[in-house]
Amino acid sequence: MANTLEFRESANAAALLKQLPGRLLNRPAAKIEVLPNKDIGAAIASGSYAVDSMIVIPCSMGTLAAIASGVSDDLVSRAADVMLKENRKLVLCVRDTPFNRIHLENMLRLQQAGAVIMPAIPAFYHHPQTIDDLITQYIHRVLAQIDLAQENMYRWTGQTGVKKAEA
Amino acid sequence: MANTLEFRESANAAALLKQLPGRLLNRPAAKIEVLPNKDIGAAIASGSYAVDSMIVIPCSMGTLAAIASGVSDDLVSRAADVMLKENRKLVLCVRDTPFNRIHLENMLRLQQAGAVIMPAIPAFYHHPQTIDDLITQYIHRVLAQIDLAQENMYRWTGQTGVKKAEA
Repeated sequence: MANTLEFRESANAAALLKQLPGRLLNRPAAKIEVLPNKDIGAAIASGSYAVDSMIVIPCSMGTLAAIASGVSDDLVSRAADVMLKENRKLVLCVRDTPFNRIHLENMLRLQQAGAVIMPAIPAFYHHPQTIDDLITQYIHRVLAQIDLAQENMYRWTGQTGVKKAEA
Repeated sequence: MANTLEFRESANAAALLKQLPGRLLNRPAAKIEVLPNKDIGAAIASGSYAVDSMIVIPCSMGTLAAIASGVSDDLVSRAADVMLKENRKLVLCVRDTPFNRIHLENMLRLQQAGAVIMPAIPAFYHHPQTIDDLITQYIHRVLAQIDLAQENMYRWTGQTGVKKAEA
């Protein structure tokens, strides 16, 4: 199968992990750091680490539950816990459907604690033609949540705007 | 613009509404009934009407709120209220993202009242190539919720199954 990188627990695992972003992007990716989820001592697990926002994408219902519980025994849930305690932006891109009561209670709890609950529901008002169009608009919306300018994001301009664009 | 039918309040509106399914499907649609949302006296608004399930698709957050409130002042929310009181299946396909606290409280309330909260989040494990592939699998999942057999629905068979299929 193409586009698959296999990682096993080994002496080489850490080195391979570092190469992952560059190999996926097919270009150097010096700004991207890959961390094992068990590395709960990583810099990002501390409120002293200078970061504005965190996005968990996709956010499984297991990860949502881990964050909602506050137990913080892996890097994702510990870093998320830090974001909430520091009153920084935390965006959780949940992707399961349908929702059971536990999912809904966890999402409500986290929303009340300050997280943005952003299920991966695609929009159709920009007339997407391909799956890539759908995903791109969703990613624009997610990045706009953390205040990154999204010049190519479709923005609804009201019925009047639609009529103008079609004229 | 193609594929648009315009309806205005007029003497012809009721007649045009009846033609809608056939015109959209491009074939006779005798089993489909189109009802105005203000027709709160329609048969489906009564528990005496023989129906097993109801799907609201898409379910706007406004409709979700109307159903959650129990006010039942239009046909959709009244029929949904009847489904819950009769302990029948009600599937709500919400499509907004992100969720605010009111959305989450309404979804939780309705889930506790017996509804299935089924946000329109597409799956990717069946390797969809087109938007149509994404939507078809989602519709299979929705229809499976109301116990209609979905022979063409993709079903996850575990990692072993995936390996077998690829061999």
